[in-house]
Amino acid sequence: MKTFEELESTVRSYSRGWPTVFEKAKGYKIWDTDGNEYIDFFAGAGALNYGHNDDTMQEKMIDYIQNNGILHSLDMGTTSRKMFLERFKEVILEPRDLDYKVMFPGPTGTNSVESALKIARKVTGRDTVISFTNAFHGMTIGSLSVTANSFKRHGAGVPLHHSVSMPFDDYVEGQNTLAYLERFLEDRGSGVALPAAIILETVQGEGGINAASMEWLKKVADLCKRWDILLIVDDVQAGCGRTGTFFSFEPAGIDPDIVCLSKSIGGAGLPMALTLIKPEYDQWGPGEHNGTFRGNNLAFIGAAEALSYWENDDFSKSIQEKGVVLREGIEALVTKYPEFDAHHRGRGLMQGIATAKPELTDAICSEAFQRGLIVETSGPEDEVVKFLPPLIIDKEGINEGLAILDESIKTVLEK
Amino acid sequence: MKTFEELESTVRSYSRGWPTVFEKAKGYKIWDTDGNEYIDFFAGAGALNYGHNDDTMQEKMIDYIQNNGILHSLDMGTTSRKMFLERFKEVILEPRDLDYKVMFPGPTGTNSVESALKIARKVTGRDTVISFTNAFHGMTIGSLSVTANSFKRHGAGVPLHHSVSMPFDDYVEGQNTLAYLERFLEDRGSGVALPAAIILETVQGEGGINAASMEWLKKVADLCKRWDILLIVDDVQAGCGRTGTFFSFEPAGIDPDIVCLSKSIGGAGLPMALTLIKPEYDQWGPGEHNGTFRGNNLAFIGAAEALSYWENDDFSKSIQEKGVVLREGIEALVTKYPEFDAHHRGRGLMQGIATAKPELTDAICSEAFQRGLIVETSGPEDEVVKFLPPLIIDKEGINEGLAILDESIKTVLEK
Amino acid sequence: MKTFEELESTVRSYSRGWPTVFEKAKGYKIWDTDGNEYIDFFAGAGALNYGHNDDTMQEKMIDYIQNNGILHSLDMGTTSRKMFLERFKEVILEPRDLDYKVMFPGPTGTNSVESALKIARKVTGRDTVISFTNAFHGMTIGSLSVTANSFKRHGAGVPLHHSVSMPFDDYVEGQNTLAYLERFLEDRGSGVALPAAIILETVQGEGGINAASMEWLKKVADLCKRWDILLIVDDVQAGCGRTGTFFSFEPAGIDPDIVCLSKSIGGAGLPMALTLIKPEYDQWGPGEHNGTFRGNNLAFIGAAEALSYWENDDFSKSIQEKGVVLREGIEALVTKYPEFDAHHRGRGLMQGIATAKPELTDAICSEAFQRGLIVETSGPEDEVVKFLPPLIIDKEGINEGLAILDESIKTVLEK
Amino acid sequence: MKTFEELESTVRSYSRGWPTVFEKAKGYKIWDTDGNEYIDFFAGAGALNYGHNDDTMQEKMIDYIQNNGILHSLDMGTTSRKMFLERFKEVILEPRDLDYKVMFPGPTGTNSVESALKIARKVTGRDTVISFTNAFHGMTIGSLSVTANSFKRHGAGVPLHHSVSMPFDDYVEGQNTLAYLERFLEDRGSGVALPAAIILETVQGEGGINAASMEWLKKVADLCKRWDILLIVDDVQAGCGRTGTFFSFEPAGIDPDIVCLSKSIGGAGLPMALTLIKPEYDQWGPGEHNGTFRGNNLAFIGAAEALSYWENDDFSKSIQEKGVVLREGIEALVTKYPEFDAHHRGRGLMQGIATAKPELTDAICSEAFQRGLIVETSGPEDEVVKFLPPLIIDKEGINEGLAILDESIKTVLEK
Repeated sequence: MKTFEELESTVRSYSRGWPTVFEKAKGYKIWDTDGNEYIDFFAGAGALNYGHNDDTMQEKMIDYIQNNGILHSLDMGTTSRKMFLERFKEVILEPRDLDYKVMFPGPTGTNSVESALKIARKVTGRDTVISFTNAFHGMTIGSLSVTANSFKRHGAGVPLHHSVSMPFDDYVEGQNTLAYLERFLEDRGSGVALPAAIILETVQGEGGINAASMEWLKKVADLCKRWDILLIVDDVQAGCGRTGTFFSFEPAGIDPDIVCLSKSIGGAGLPMALTLIKPEYDQWGPGEHNGTFRGNNLAFIGAAEALSYWENDDFSKSIQEKGVVLREGIEALVTKYPEFDAHHRGRGLMQGIATAKPELTDAICSEAFQRGLIVETSGPEDEVVKFLPPLIIDKEGINEGLAILDESIKTVLEK
Repeated sequence: MKTFEELESTVRSYSRGWPTVFEKAKGYKIWDTDGNEYIDFFAGAGALNYGHNDDTMQEKMIDYIQNNGILHSLDMGTTSRKMFLERFKEVILEPRDLDYKVMFPGPTGTNSVESALKIARKVTGRDTVISFTNAFHGMTIGSLSVTANSFKRHGAGVPLHHSVSMPFDDYVEGQNTLAYLERFLEDRGSGVALPAAIILETVQGEGGINAASMEWLKKVADLCKRWDILLIVDDVQAGCGRTGTFFSFEPAGIDPDIVCLSKSIGGAGLPMALTLIKPEYDQWGPGEHNGTFRGNNLAFIGAAEALSYWENDDFSKSIQEKGVVLREGIEALVTKYPEFDAHHRGRGLMQGIATAKPELTDAICSEAFQRGLIVETSGPEDEVVKFLPPLIIDKEGINEGLAILDESIKTVLEK
Repeated sequence: MKTFEELESTVRSYSRGWPTVFEKAKGYKIWDTDGNEYIDFFAGAGALNYGHNDDTMQEKMIDYIQNNGILHSLDMGTTSRKMFLERFKEVILEPRDLDYKVMFPGPTGTNSVESALKIARKVTGRDTVISFTNAFHGMTIGSLSVTANSFKRHGAGVPLHHSVSMPFDDYVEGQNTLAYLERFLEDRGSGVALPAAIILETVQGEGGINAASMEWLKKVADLCKRWDILLIVDDVQAGCGRTGTFFSFEPAGIDPDIVCLSKSIGGAGLPMALTLIKPEYDQWGPGEHNGTFRGNNLAFIGAAEALSYWENDDFSKSIQEKGVVLREGIEALVTKYPEFDAHHRGRGLMQGIATAKPELTDAICSEAFQRGLIVETSGPEDEVVKFLPPLIIDKEGINEGLAILDESIKTVLEK
Repeated sequence: MKTFEELESTVRSYSRGWPTVFEKAKGYKIWDTDGNEYIDFFAGAGALNYGHNDDTMQEKMIDYIQNNGILHSLDMGTTSRKMFLERFKEVILEPRDLDYKVMFPGPTGTNSVESALKIARKVTGRDTVISFTNAFHGMTIGSLSVTANSFKRHGAGVPLHHSVSMPFDDYVEGQNTLAYLERFLEDRGSGVALPAAIILETVQGEGGINAASMEWLKKVADLCKRWDILLIVDDVQAGCGRTGTFFSFEPAGIDPDIVCLSKSIGGAGLPMALTLIKPEYDQWGPGEHNGTFRGNNLAFIGAAEALSYWENDDFSKSIQEKGVVLREGIEALVTKYPEFDAHHRGRGLMQGIATAKPELTDAICSEAFQRGLIVETSGPEDEVVKFLPPLIIDKEGINEGLAILDESIKTVLEK
């Protein structure tokens, strides 16, 4: 660890909570250089939905490298880019009756969000974007402007503009948050300008595993239509199957104007991002938003292979089934430890246990790590222990992880 | 090409100028699916300094994958991260007497720049950053604020703030741009606040291959010291040997407070970026700037291998020698085609031919492409044909490329 | 009228609704050059609380001019400035147990608000200011940033920053707006930074005569104390007795940190403004906020004389009594014309009749004008006919005005 | 003075440098309550060009008040407003072949500037405004954004946006400031967006009595025409005859698109301001920029009377003659006290003596005050003693003032 402590910037974070050197990984397991094995309930913060080192992806990537496949190409046409585009259309867009132009905005989620905000502002000629309390959309200045966390925002070093934070579903106890949003939109004296877009996560990952109801999502989509506001769904963390369907918004039956994808879209965990834009809003000039790594071809290889999981409903169903197992496990813990004062949050394989005693969560994650489970916290006060196992995990894996968590909670409560 | 035209966003750019599907690449050559061979004077816009598919890098990456090496890890400790950090210290920092903390800010240049601006603002408590005319630092809102191109800036859809554009070396004919900068800094009535930082490229790639003189760089560094302003060198395009030394600023003998690296730092062209920060300014809180793909471990494998080029002076010398060949070739073209009204720009293997007839450059690049040379334009009016061959090219490759360019210019002038 | 139409900018507004040339005025009456007499229920938008051309003020101003009293003096010491300061302390501050430093910020309400925002930001080191829906604080960029009306905001020509619009008391039917505000303040993930200040009008004049309840005002004041936020009351329109007490916030028993006064503070209608600042927050450097007309000495003469009205409770009581007359009159109209679909708003002599048929109000005011009553609309949709008679009006005057209004409503409804 | 010290905010400034209570004033003289007489070389910072208490203005104002003339009227039509508009057209605009719509933006200079910036942004649809080093345009946030002084800007408490500071004529020794401005405008890669407007003072009063050459003004006006940028001349301090012609820009033969007037436009020193807008740019909606004190009718009375000075050339010529006397006096002081290391600045009756020893100027003004001369400093380092005598002063008055200054300099140098 001395290497990281001495050579790396103090900004490093995960190597603090899990102070070891990891060496190998397969499926939902990961090993450090001392040979310790860990169950991964973190999955690269949602970037490893298909688990570590999927055999077929490995083969295809090795094959691509061995054949001198092009590794870097900006947005030049390449065989791998072509293959991915065609597969994505065939496996994802067409079966869902979705019509989007695909933009490769640079290989990170924040870059996808920045591109989404830009095109929404260009298309509408408006500057304000409405985002929600406890939203997380990224760390570059554009994305940070629509991110809610005050520590992250303060880090900007400059005031953040052109955004208005509105209450997420259920944000204020006993209050109808949609009535507020609607009133602010309809009143010309509200002080909030007609926005270019509303951006949201259907399940807020960093913000505390807050899952919007389908009804709320539908109504927000309706408000957008009514006032000609673009709806941007940031599906960077909740997408790619995390909640049980490829896009997290599918059960709501809504039709966003722009969708941001990253993290697991690359399949194997290599940097990649997409911005999906309805054709009528795809009004970019060539190169108006660009970046060096728009063409991470090796990621396209993994990404195209990953789509195989989505050729039929099996994967989706299995995620939902495992989601039930996870939910029941969490609820059992809630019941078992009343002094933990906790409740369940989330859906699919994006769940968490939220406690009224946020001062305990760090210790619980630390105990879990020592027992062989990688799990992190989220929420503005770190009040949630967050479960993001790889979607390919089996029920045994889930139960094994839950068992470790059980012991960890017990240990911490007894201290 | 139909796939790209139909499925991809109109934002795509390079696939327009080079309308083919590329399949393979090795060294300084690249082939399309029709078997056409091209000399690459573009090198992934500077991301492929070591050429395509370096044998050793290929081997090491394949080996890493085969051994289930961790592909994705945010900023957890991994063996590949450790190895890279140690190699970078040993091969790059220590021999140059440089003392920097290494930050992994997300895998793109713009992310490195965003992190540099944030930490400079945090450390100084000031918000303004001075950048230069024709600067290019990236497309996310923070980086775009210090980018000069009006088309790119306009694309933001919102006004860009907290930055002041000052004239780059030689920007105004017959004027001393440093006297100008100095006056604005020293006068409390100048209307320009004392900045947190000055950010610059020593050779402006996108801005038209404008190479600052070593004297100008030294004086800017002196001004920074005098007023306690942080100096940020954005070495994303000019670094990693592009100008003949690992860092482009080495010949100026300056000592920037923050250095941004990306593009070729990954060796093989995979997304990766670093922000180097003087220890006294490394005042980040854990996770204050973060991102999912901070830990692109496969890129670290290529990156660590690439450092082998820098274990002695040989590579550096060979770049400089090839730079002379390139320069002489360009100057010969300037002389040969007086009606092209052109002059030479740049240094190292980052050079260009600038013309007073910017309307011709697109046609020249197009002719070159048809003859088997990949080369692009730069500058606010696309008035420069820009040469960024892989640094591992040989003199024959350079001359072959120049010969194609000769024919291309001739053809266009004769039209 | 040709002079105004031809020579004046199209920005002129009141000369459109009341298309005549006014010549003289006394008390609550005003005459045009054709000798028509009008009852003034507008009172210079609240700048003529003491009526037109009060005899004593006239005498004192004439005397001052005749004696070569200093008319213009920036913030130099003058006898009239001294007299005003002493009277204001003796008659207004001391009897109310209020301890404020008096700032002369330039002679307009917007200038007072700009100075209040500046000092709040300086003192707290924060930049955000919370304002309320339908707030009006002025038209210069700082004040406009905390003004809610979209037409006015749009006129800025630039996005307006550093402000957050929160729902005013009763803004959303059936919702508890304070719970909402409190949640945004307490949650570190709300997306709203801890503000420097909360600025409010106790009765929103331009925004539609929305009168906050005393309970709401108290709770907002409590929230400010709890989070160390400065409370700014903009009493430019509601102050100087308009609601029945000198300061409009007196019945709430709150103790604002900063108070903005203008309009009627000058007594006779000459430009003048004050910013009252609690001593502990009076941290200005000399001249840090300045302006040429800080020392409108002739206004100080009127202002000092006007304070005579406040030496005992008589004036205050008479306003409240006349407020009841006005309220009863309005409620009678509401009842009499159910098809007008209206309800009463406001308190003191700052009242209005709000209708669900905003398309009628302009015609009503126009009819009233033709019948000899000056009255204007307010609210985001001009949905309120707003009554601001001079406070010195007698009950006959109020009833006469109401009678004209009765006829005007009737006429319009019958059209 | 105790009253001011105890009751007034610490922001007060002039009552510090001239610590007495003034009581009366006539012409170019002013008296305090102790009967001390002072020559006024300050003239209300340019608001008293016609001197204190002009006999005719006094009469007309008294007459107006006695006849119950309307004192306050927002922008309603009144006889006094009508008379002023007609006189201004007849005496000022027509003889100079100027075609402007007259806007009454609120009674202060900063309000005129705010309105000018708004309309320029609206008309062009652009947001940036170019202003100049050492410019002073006012203290509200919009005007402050184009004001250069760092102490004033810092006072905003928020970053100031949408403005770019360019070098005023002669700002950088040996550099051609126009070449810079032109280069920034013509290069699409300059980092400076095409501005809505360029705003300037022909002689910078607060910035240190920097007088632009007529050639520079002409060239700036040409650049504006060439790029379709609106030219705003802020003639608040330099206008109304201060430099020898009614508008300060007349000798340059330029034709600004917008002109800001305030200070002496009211004649007698009462708050008043105008924004003059070319008819084609007068695209305001009714009330889009408003304010309570747009109709300071008593000021219109003084203002209309003041125009009598401009019915022929006599006043203009006399100012220019007195300007020569003042200039010769200043130059004599420069020569007499080489150790003061000073030089002359300015034109008309807006002149100053600038020293390389700014630490002396406060003491000189203090000595002058004790000897009966009111004179203040200006410039970013207070390096200029600034002379703004009333324009109606006679040569004896000027010489008397200069004699006091001579003694004051002598005394300070001998300390």
